[in-house]
Amino acid sequence: MRKVFLLMFLLPLMAVAQTVTSPNGNIIVTFSLTGNGRPTYEMTYKGKVVVKPSFLGLELAKDKHASEGLHETDLMDGFEISKTEHCSFDDTWQPVWGETRYIRNHYNEMAVTLSQLSPVHPKGEKDRKMLIRFRVYDDGIGFRYEFPQQKHLNYFIIKEEHSEFAMAGDHMAWWLPGDYDTQEQITQQTRLSEIRSKMQEAVNWGNSSVAVFSPTGVQTSLQMKSDDGLYINIHEAACLDYATMHLELVDDQTKVLTTKLGGGSNAYTPNPKPSVYPLPAPLTFVSHLTPDATGLKGAMQTPCTTPWRTVMVSDDARDMLSSKLILNLNEPCKIEDTSWIHPTKYCGVWWEMIVGKSSWNYTDDYPSIKLGQIDWNKVKPNGRHAANNENVKRYIDFAAANGLDEVLVEGWNVGWEDWANMWKRDVFDFVTPYPDFDIKALNDYAHSKGVKILMHHETSSSAQNYERHIKEAYELMNRYGYDAVKTGYVGDIIPRGDHHYSQSMNNHYLYVIKEAAKHHVMVNSHEATRPTGICRTYPNLVGGESARGTEYEAFGGNNPDHTCILPFTRLQGGPMDYTPGIFVTKLSEWSNNDSWARITIAGTLALYVTMYSPLQMVADLPEHYERFMDAFQFIKDVACDWEDSRYLEAEPGDYITVARKAKGTDNWFVGGKCDENGHSVVVKLDFLDRGRKYDCTIYADAKDAHYEKNPQSYVITKRIVKKGDILKLKEASGGGFAVSIIAKD
Amino acid sequence: MRKVFLLMFLLPLMAVAQTVTSPNGNIIVTFSLTGNGRPTYEMTYKGKVVVKPSFLGLELAKDKHASEGLHETDLMDGFEISKTEHCSFDDTWQPVWGETRYIRNHYNEMAVTLSQLSPVHPKGEKDRKMLIRFRVYDDGIGFRYEFPQQKHLNYFIIKEEHSEFAMAGDHMAWWLPGDYDTQEQITQQTRLSEIRSKMQEAVNWGNSSVAVFSPTGVQTSLQMKSDDGLYINIHEAACLDYATMHLELVDDQTKVLTTKLGGGSNAYTPNPKPSVYPLPAPLTFVSHLTPDATGLKGAMQTPCTTPWRTVMVSDDARDMLSSKLILNLNEPCKIEDTSWIHPTKYCGVWWEMIVGKSSWNYTDDYPSIKLGQIDWNKVKPNGRHAANNENVKRYIDFAAANGLDEVLVEGWNVGWEDWANMWKRDVFDFVTPYPDFDIKALNDYAHSKGVKILMHHETSSSAQNYERHIKEAYELMNRYGYDAVKTGYVGDIIPRGDHHYSQSMNNHYLYVIKEAAKHHVMVNSHEATRPTGICRTYPNLVGGESARGTEYEAFGGNNPDHTCILPFTRLQGGPMDYTPGIFVTKLSEWSNNDSWARITIAGTLALYVTMYSPLQMVADLPEHYERFMDAFQFIKDVACDWEDSRYLEAEPGDYITVARKAKGTDNWFVGGKCDENGHSVVVKLDFLDRGRKYDCTIYADAKDAHYEKNPQSYVITKRIVKKGDILKLKEASGGGFAVSIIAKD
Repeated sequence: MRKVFLLMFLLPLMAVAQTVTSPNGNIIVTFSLTGNGRPTYEMTYKGKVVVKPSFLGLELAKDKHASEGLHETDLMDGFEISKTEHCSFDDTWQPVWGETRYIRNHYNEMAVTLSQLSPVHPKGEKDRKMLIRFRVYDDGIGFRYEFPQQKHLNYFIIKEEHSEFAMAGDHMAWWLPGDYDTQEQITQQTRLSEIRSKMQEAVNWGNSSVAVFSPTGVQTSLQMKSDDGLYINIHEAACLDYATMHLELVDDQTKVLTTKLGGGSNAYTPNPKPSVYPLPAPLTFVSHLTPDATGLKGAMQTPCTTPWRTVMVSDDARDMLSSKLILNLNEPCKIEDTSWIHPTKYCGVWWEMIVGKSSWNYTDDYPSIKLGQIDWNKVKPNGRHAANNENVKRYIDFAAANGLDEVLVEGWNVGWEDWANMWKRDVFDFVTPYPDFDIKALNDYAHSKGVKILMHHETSSSAQNYERHIKEAYELMNRYGYDAVKTGYVGDIIPRGDHHYSQSMNNHYLYVIKEAAKHHVMVNSHEATRPTGICRTYPNLVGGESARGTEYEAFGGNNPDHTCILPFTRLQGGPMDYTPGIFVTKLSEWSNNDSWARITIAGTLALYVTMYSPLQMVADLPEHYERFMDAFQFIKDVACDWEDSRYLEAEPGDYITVARKAKGTDNWFVGGKCDENGHSVVVKLDFLDRGRKYDCTIYADAKDAHYEKNPQSYVITKRIVKKGDILKLKEASGGGFAVSIIAKD
Repeated sequence: MRKVFLLMFLLPLMAVAQTVTSPNGNIIVTFSLTGNGRPTYEMTYKGKVVVKPSFLGLELAKDKHASEGLHETDLMDGFEISKTEHCSFDDTWQPVWGETRYIRNHYNEMAVTLSQLSPVHPKGEKDRKMLIRFRVYDDGIGFRYEFPQQKHLNYFIIKEEHSEFAMAGDHMAWWLPGDYDTQEQITQQTRLSEIRSKMQEAVNWGNSSVAVFSPTGVQTSLQMKSDDGLYINIHEAACLDYATMHLELVDDQTKVLTTKLGGGSNAYTPNPKPSVYPLPAPLTFVSHLTPDATGLKGAMQTPCTTPWRTVMVSDDARDMLSSKLILNLNEPCKIEDTSWIHPTKYCGVWWEMIVGKSSWNYTDDYPSIKLGQIDWNKVKPNGRHAANNENVKRYIDFAAANGLDEVLVEGWNVGWEDWANMWKRDVFDFVTPYPDFDIKALNDYAHSKGVKILMHHETSSSAQNYERHIKEAYELMNRYGYDAVKTGYVGDIIPRGDHHYSQSMNNHYLYVIKEAAKHHVMVNSHEATRPTGICRTYPNLVGGESARGTEYEAFGGNNPDHTCILPFTRLQGGPMDYTPGIFVTKLSEWSNNDSWARITIAGTLALYVTMYSPLQMVADLPEHYERFMDAFQFIKDVACDWEDSRYLEAEPGDYITVARKAKGTDNWFVGGKCDENGHSVVVKLDFLDRGRKYDCTIYADAKDAHYEKNPQSYVITKRIVKKGDILKLKEASGGGFAVSIIAKD
């Protein structure tokens, strides 16, 4: 079922507006050039303005090698339209794993080829080409810049991308402070005009690698809601060898649009051009790329493209969650044999260290350590090292007894004594276990029970060190039968001066994914850049963090509405390893940690359905689950790969209810999660097969349940259901529900 | 023959001057603290002042992670002497290759342990320790900073090292502009006070990676001569995981001692301290380290040391050349099995590309290329590609016929179409040959003739890319029987913002040397940092460039005195792959290149003796040597590993005459090289064995020889000689002579 229609209009030298409409006609994108040849677009949805006329373009850096082939004349203005091509596309593809077995990729496309006078041929032909391609779906648009191979544009350095998104009103927004190094902040819900005044308190300055760049800088995916009921979401797709995009809001107080950070390169002199481009109107977002150590944003070689800049829109919040626009804008799978990629439910030697009851490191006796200069068999153990043979076996036994696929073990390898924020390059070697972790025996033991150990590679953000060791590290994994790795990037990037979301680091993450694929290893990348749907192309990227995960429940807590926001924002680009499943929410019950998880047990069960991921952790301690085995049954039963998903209701920051059909079965799982206000929901089981009966188990908050006062109060009820039946459910404050619906026979 | 004497004086809290003297008593070093606890040293030679009282210390950078273990209180002042240890050392060791079979390492040592108030314990014990160790030889000194592992100094970031060298007069100096990225400049000969006024014209701004940092910044090794006849040389030894040191001269015009470049880090705020330390007196050199991309100079973890800072001194210029001080200050060999390391004489497919007659690249048809996206079998060859099967075979035949060990082939691997200065990260893969280079067949052919091919890895300074490919690259070399690699670092460093001589890049070069050693590969590193004697520790580093080599004879020419300076400067740290041997000096005779080599044929023969290297290229084209086979005989005969070396006379920039005995034989080779003024020399053969006869062949400039007007005019004479005989030789302008003395029977 693949149809492509191609219509081409050749409109040389005519600056008339070009239009492209979504398949259902609801969305219209109009492109034109201003009098001085600046590219401009606007976007409407059902006649309402989503993006007011906004400029597009790239500012280039002055480079000392400009005479040798690098260009520095901005790609901002002076353009003419030399060609406009239209086409339609309709195809359906199958992801290796996902929320649905089939994904329809249906759009209308307009590609505008622009010509600019080359500085090499000031009086010659308009021989610098840049193409802007728009893809318009029923639920949003994507556009990107493309740079064909050409004689007079072979290499260039991006000083800044100036893609503008002029908003039509002072929308409500769910935003994170724009930051070059962390996404682990609390989402703020304010009007656009309130971002500036809220920024200072929005930043958790205690995070180890805060690098905010502007009082109005925010991250994507940015979810908004307009006063006239439009849900608008700005993000990007297919960010591969390019810097991650932030958005900088022009507001009433913006005087001059300048880059707040950066500079300091020896190779460049400041490009004096920013001021020659007029300041956009207030309520306009302008793209702001993550710089490298020189303050610049990227080195490009034609032929190349930027990532897609996406604007999703609907008057139904559920469309924000069910949209496949980001995945569709990525390239098809590039891994030929994907048979080794599989959904994974896992527990791990992890939460006990996060909470502070045990440690990653093996000894406390050295003020600092250097790999290769310590005889680990002779050092004095601290007695708190969690990744020891006995403890790991306990987790393996628990996984085997409960049908979990894998056991993550953090702190297995030497180097944790002084791993972070010391600018240590050679912090880990990724192959040497601590003396109390018998890598061969433990893997053998796990395999004998049908369980795998999940590898952990904390890089401490020393990317250079990880690349030096990566081949040996993956060879070791192959040797012992690991098939998945959790990577970590805590702390500041080494080489110093670089940032987590720069072009070079995004290239690094991709390098890791590709090396892992060569070794048939799945990757779950923590503290890496926020995803942009590249798991379509590289489906061994099965998870990631890139947001405030469950670990923050041990660092002061996440707000009850946090998991009602993440699916609208962080999850747009790909699944998150949120690590749900905390049953004993008051950590002081079993540790010296006073923090507590803001969620009920029923609510945490719901997350296995509402927070889609092919990789789901069962994060609490085995002994905690053993106290609530009836509730734990849902975690054992729930799938993590899906035939189909139906978002039943949703409102950002308030509630999400979704029903999913487990892939390859006739079983359904329904989850509902709400914020601190509680929520009542009526679930109509019209998605079940007609004439069939199902065993339905409902895990609900009890009447007295409350995320703070009574989080462990739940009720489990069982009944037989059929298509059309109705479930009336009440979610407590900070609670939720989970339902399993198992087909009989 | 190893003697160590240890004498320890415990002088706690006493700031009296400490003294250490060279074994022969000629050199005296005195150490003391100023009133505010600043470390100070001075140095005399035979009663003459070499270094006037000069401060020592390190300024540390303010780091946002300071509270987590990184210190920022400078290691400049506030010290007390807590311990002084003296010892003597006398040992003789054998290098794997070298100018002499035995090297004596004989010094007196003084190690001063300093204590500083820890900022963590402002009222507590003096618990920050820094040790300054002096080693005093008969021909100079070395000192370094040592930082023991300790509770309150585990990690620190160096803002600048402030090692001062206060000169006693306005010496004549042979200097290169201080530069973070290139050493390929013409040596300037001026008084110290003239450096500032000469700087602008001293820099060849056309070099692809000029990064000068100060109008009085110069490189080391810096050779000087005082008006009272002292030869003084400042350099460093054992620069491993540390930034390369430059020297910044304080002169009459210096107002404030500040770092001229750098800054721009997001992680740091400027340390306001430079101004609190008083400006040194004019004619003082202050150390200036090469920064990383953030403008800072290095990240340290205790226990650690800096490189040695060396000051060589003598009233005899020959001692500058015969000194083994730099090698002695390096650690003994760390490679257990060195059997695969061997002296190498080689020719190569190289000069014809340097001159411009043929090309490294295979096609001219693409404005740019991307590896993996081109089918090289289908591209149109440019017909100028030198690394083709037929041409390479011709060089192999030439090598085999003339006893050369290896044939360098540059341009064998894909990627040369747009390799430099485009900020391309993925510029080469180091394993894919062009279609006209049959890697297996050519290696087989070479091996069948007893010759090896010498690998070439041009990294284009994309260090990250090289590290990603290095294992496959060396595995390929092992597979096809390569045992040596010439590496190259043309252009600006990637990751962007870094510099050729920074701590991170020095670590990279060392990483490459170690990886090569694992694969039994010898390294000849071009455009890398200048060497500091680390070939003692890693003798597979058989050569390097790090100065203006013969290639510049095709880029405008080297001055005739160039090779009479290099042994005093560049060669102090280790051998140089100068690639001598140009017989047809007027390049226009066989190419479109108007440049010409400033040397006579006899002069170029001399270089094989005067420019010591275990790796010697025979750089001209085979067909050029075939025109002068009688002169070429010397290149065939000359050794490149030595039993003994005797510097007979020397004056920087004027002339060098040296006699060397080939290792494992009784044969001697004598070389003399002079500048544009010509030179007469009387060589007394008192180094020959008594009662023995030798066949002596003298390759001398003819009477009418002249480096410009008549470079190919030489006279070869043969005679029988014995110990005590005298050779009277006349070197032409820009000429020299070479003598082989072969023992009879």
